[in-house]
Amino acid sequence: MSKEIRLNAFTMNTVGHMSPGLWTHPRDRSSHYTDLKHWADLAKTLERGRFDAVFIADVIGIYDVYNGDPTSPIRHATQIPVGDPLLIVPAMALVTEHLSFGVTSSVSYEHPYPFARRFSTLDHLIKGRVAWNVVTSYLDSGARATGQQALAGHDDRYDLAEDYLEVCYKLWEGSWEDGAVRRDKASGVFTDPSKVHNIRHKGPHFQVDGIHLSEPSPQRTPVIFQAGASTRGRQFAARHAEAIFVGAPSKHVLKNYVDALRAGAVEQGRRADDLVIYNMHTVIVAETDAEAQEKHAEYRKHISHEGALTLMSGWSGIDFGKYQLDEPLRYVKTNAGQSFVEAFSSSDPAREWTLREMAEWVAIGGRGPTSIGSPKTVADELEAWVNETGVDGFNLASVVMPETFEQVADLLVPELQRRGLFKKDYAEGTLRQKLFGRGDRIAAGHPAHAAREAVRAAGR
Amino acid sequence: MSKEIRLNAFTMNTVGHMSPGLWTHPRDRSSHYTDLKHWADLAKTLERGRFDAVFIADVIGIYDVYNGDPTSPIRHATQIPVGDPLLIVPAMALVTEHLSFGVTSSVSYEHPYPFARRFSTLDHLIKGRVAWNVVTSYLDSGARATGQQALAGHDDRYDLAEDYLEVCYKLWEGSWEDGAVRRDKASGVFTDPSKVHNIRHKGPHFQVDGIHLSEPSPQRTPVIFQAGASTRGRQFAARHAEAIFVGAPSKHVLKNYVDALRAGAVEQGRRADDLVIYNMHTVIVAETDAEAQEKHAEYRKHISHEGALTLMSGWSGIDFGKYQLDEPLRYVKTNAGQSFVEAFSSSDPAREWTLREMAEWVAIGGRGPTSIGSPKTVADELEAWVNETGVDGFNLASVVMPETFEQVADLLVPELQRRGLFKKDYAEGTLRQKLFGRGDRIAAGHPAHAAREAVRAAGR
Repeated sequence: MSKEIRLNAFTMNTVGHMSPGLWTHPRDRSSHYTDLKHWADLAKTLERGRFDAVFIADVIGIYDVYNGDPTSPIRHATQIPVGDPLLIVPAMALVTEHLSFGVTSSVSYEHPYPFARRFSTLDHLIKGRVAWNVVTSYLDSGARATGQQALAGHDDRYDLAEDYLEVCYKLWEGSWEDGAVRRDKASGVFTDPSKVHNIRHKGPHFQVDGIHLSEPSPQRTPVIFQAGASTRGRQFAARHAEAIFVGAPSKHVLKNYVDALRAGAVEQGRRADDLVIYNMHTVIVAETDAEAQEKHAEYRKHISHEGALTLMSGWSGIDFGKYQLDEPLRYVKTNAGQSFVEAFSSSDPAREWTLREMAEWVAIGGRGPTSIGSPKTVADELEAWVNETGVDGFNLASVVMPETFEQVADLLVPELQRRGLFKKDYAEGTLRQKLFGRGDRIAAGHPAHAAREAVRAAGR
Repeated sequence: MSKEIRLNAFTMNTVGHMSPGLWTHPRDRSSHYTDLKHWADLAKTLERGRFDAVFIADVIGIYDVYNGDPTSPIRHATQIPVGDPLLIVPAMALVTEHLSFGVTSSVSYEHPYPFARRFSTLDHLIKGRVAWNVVTSYLDSGARATGQQALAGHDDRYDLAEDYLEVCYKLWEGSWEDGAVRRDKASGVFTDPSKVHNIRHKGPHFQVDGIHLSEPSPQRTPVIFQAGASTRGRQFAARHAEAIFVGAPSKHVLKNYVDALRAGAVEQGRRADDLVIYNMHTVIVAETDAEAQEKHAEYRKHISHEGALTLMSGWSGIDFGKYQLDEPLRYVKTNAGQSFVEAFSSSDPAREWTLREMAEWVAIGGRGPTSIGSPKTVADELEAWVNETGVDGFNLASVVMPETFEQVADLLVPELQRRGLFKKDYAEGTLRQKLFGRGDRIAAGHPAHAAREAVRAAGR
């Protein structure tokens, strides 16, 4: 059999995640995001489809670059209102056994000490099915809302993230030795105090004089997810990430990303297969090709161009409100000179894109490619993406929620399973064990191990 | 009928909450605190017993005053390890319909902007069954662990809490007007931007230039819980709290608390019955008085004196490790001169307590009184407490988890119901509506209203 294809569900505790305007579709239930049962039902669907994990995006702030104010995102519910991503997880986990959860949390707003406890708590409660999507926040509006004068420089944010992660690793890996917890009712000893250590961290941004508040959870360090695409972001990913999310619009762009990420990990002393890489992808699948195309056409009627431009402006920092919808992208590119537009239009350099076309692409599932067709057609396409790029799998956003995920689970996954390209059952164990098959703990060569040793050395 | 008696369950995401040593009891399941199903099962028990809410304590830090180091709490699991209180709530809420959740969160470790979103998210997901137990952290170890040189002064912490709450009120009450959210699929308008406001808060501790990230939740402001017993803490409670937890060891101490708290609320322009007051209380109930006494004797065999002294040292700041267990308390009081010991021994001024006796009192359910006996005996006692003090109800900790709560639900509550002193069914609606019967929103006269008006004024 070829390499197994992996799927993640990409979602957000909000109304308009990656498909601006589609919340207005009659069958779309995104606006039920405030209902815990909505999420519990989604979890059951995803587990039926043997998705690895649900990757829950988050953003603190608002997309106010488009037209320079927050009117458009508020009107169109472009990732606002947005709820805390963590609180839907325990309910989704209670009704599932194997589905894992990649939760986005920024290093910009909370001290790592209570944060590390929060993720340990979750890893305990849901038995090692936790990943942390590490982000350094990117919206100026988020900085202003939390009393920061302006967003720290991009590289500075990654420096802070390094220190933040080191604190977390020390707490997760170094503070409580294996065997510290005895739970011994007969002797009355719960924990052996000689095996619990103050981490004594003095970093450039954070100082911690204390022990971790949680006993070691199944994975200790949650699986580290990362989605940064900048040069500094990719360095950070090569060093820390175990699963990486990219948003490449074409195979040649994706292959470059995949090769660079794996080479980067090896440079950092890790194995190339210590990384699982997912590309953003949108699937519209139906019994037949014709039916799928019809569905796509029907979905397109609900696109919000303004919502798409609002998202694109927030991501890129370019105010697309200054351009006409039918202007060619090369004109935008010349004026704004931004890598976002370049990366997008490079997917098909021969094609002359307009801003409208780009917005319509983005409005169905964001920046990644879209596969539309019968289970056979879509499976053929996904197989080609894997074979030609070396990517491990796909991060699928919904177009219509939860219809997209239901159809993937019920139509596409069985086709992939028939081809021997998709697991019929989950492997046992934690997310890390499921992804890599080498145990619950983070792989050798990862900087978490050095952090553990630093705690030991400080204690001597 | 006499006044209805209210019950809350008092617990913590930890092993040894209020009954040090009892985790070693053969039937005790406290050490299953890392299992989500343990909490979901507890929620079902509490809903069967028509408890108002489960009040989840929390502490960031460790009780290292006893003997001046953290050895004892680690060994005895005295509130360490301790998990994040919030993450057990969504799972407990998914399997219940009416039980509410009072979640402790400190104002000391996180900016109010993401915090306010977290509680709005929870209030949405669990349909208005949320309370926030506001704490200003009290352990030096927590300050050191988060890079603060020393814990801020007690009054300073309350000043910071005032600013923190003002930010939260502005976000919860002022940022999104009623009617802002239209969810209108036909027009494509999710929210009317003209009804969403930047709160523009410039306080002494926090500055917020942004809108709230959440749309208005059922209660907007969660029900405000408070448990501070100091003079400044009680001022704060009189101004902000809707439910107050006290730990009075005797009726005359409790009556003084209750009268002072209600008078304080009235001074602040609120109604005396805008406050629900619960006293900490421990119940050991069985079919007969003899059986209950036997059970108590059996529980006592599992007490950890060292664990109790560790808790008491952490609460009071007195290192009880310096005293002999059989020393009279007046000796400790003379040496340490602390209000904690005075308040305790004032419960029965004629009695000569030793430190051992105090530790044994504390080891079964903490500082509050204990009622032991048949349903009739315990109900008589609780009724007397309510009638003689004006308290509204009791905050019951477990001695053996979850046995204590099961027996209250199955033995005590039916007896109280027979007497017409306890609800047979929950009222419909949010926690605030259930407690006060005057709607989902915070009562007039509460400072949350002034905060909303301040946002309106700033927007003009």
